[in-house]
Amino acid sequence: MSQSNTPAAPTTSVTTPAGTIDPKLIVPFVNAVRNVFMTMVHVKTDIGRPFTKGVPAPQHDVSSIIGFSGEVVGTCVVSFELEAAKQLVASFAQVELPEDSADFADALGELANMIAGGAKKDLGAVASISTPSVIMGKGHSIARLKDVPCLIIPCSTEVGDFAVEISMKRVTKAA
Amino acid sequence: MSQSNTPAAPTTSVTTPAGTIDPKLIVPFVNAVRNVFMTMVHVKTDIGRPFTKGVPAPQHDVSSIIGFSGEVVGTCVVSFELEAAKQLVASFAQVELPEDSADFADALGELANMIAGGAKKDLGAVASISTPSVIMGKGHSIARLKDVPCLIIPCSTEVGDFAVEISMKRVTKAA
Repeated sequence: MSQSNTPAAPTTSVTTPAGTIDPKLIVPFVNAVRNVFMTMVHVKTDIGRPFTKGVPAPQHDVSSIIGFSGEVVGTCVVSFELEAAKQLVASFAQVELPEDSADFADALGELANMIAGGAKKDLGAVASISTPSVIMGKGHSIARLKDVPCLIIPCSTEVGDFAVEISMKRVTKAA
Repeated sequence: MSQSNTPAAPTTSVTTPAGTIDPKLIVPFVNAVRNVFMTMVHVKTDIGRPFTKGVPAPQHDVSSIIGFSGEVVGTCVVSFELEAAKQLVASFAQVELPEDSADFADALGELANMIAGGAKKDLGAVASISTPSVIMGKGHSIARLKDVPCLIIPCSTEVGDFAVEISMKRVTKAA
């Protein structure tokens, strides 16, 4: 398995309008995305440099959201255009799944779950994760909230692009 | 403050295609919705009988999602049509907020946060909650996942209706 694609994780803290994201919180997600898509979806993912989420928020067709709580609190969102989601899910499930089927949503939720679960182990903080929520709706956006910093990790594969949003902060005590 | 509107919480467990939801997990949300909307939004909420989420999932314009983890794992989603969201947010914030403003999304996230936080205390289980994600997008839906039971609590107010989705299960050990 090649780990040689673009080194993408920021090595210094990244300032967003809502504050600073510790790069130690981003690197685990970059690594988890690369590993999950390589081993489970069987596609190589090129990961671009994370950037601060702007306003208006970018639009997507399908998003899987996982909540984090504990010593870090926030969310991890994996968002796709529909066509990319269909191709990536087909590669993951080894069969084409109709976009309106429960299996399609379950597969997208499971991908986010594996990314969040993989990253959780390396956050250097005690955190637990929720079940995924899978949003279906052409052109939806995830609003930028004011008090939680948010970075977008742009990801591209040979069958389509997707974006991973990390909106997360350390707290001194379990929330 | 009247607590006399329709008693809505199920008193026996409710079976959904994904299993059974313990009514002890639903009652705290019914109470929290009623209290938050009465005390913070200044509207009386009539709460209908919770029902199992069907397929296709209902469509909404705005949703706030909070993840739960710990001894219960799942999500609480508060969903609105745009017009109801605008009126309820105006009543909550005491000022009309543009639907594309960060303040509008923050207000919707805070409403979900107060409902989830209020319910959390009465779940009879140790749980922690994530920050909210606020989804904007006309006609989006939250997909039904197969392995987590999901109930919808229908809520109506004089300025518009909304729905609270509880998708949650007890786990034997913190996830």
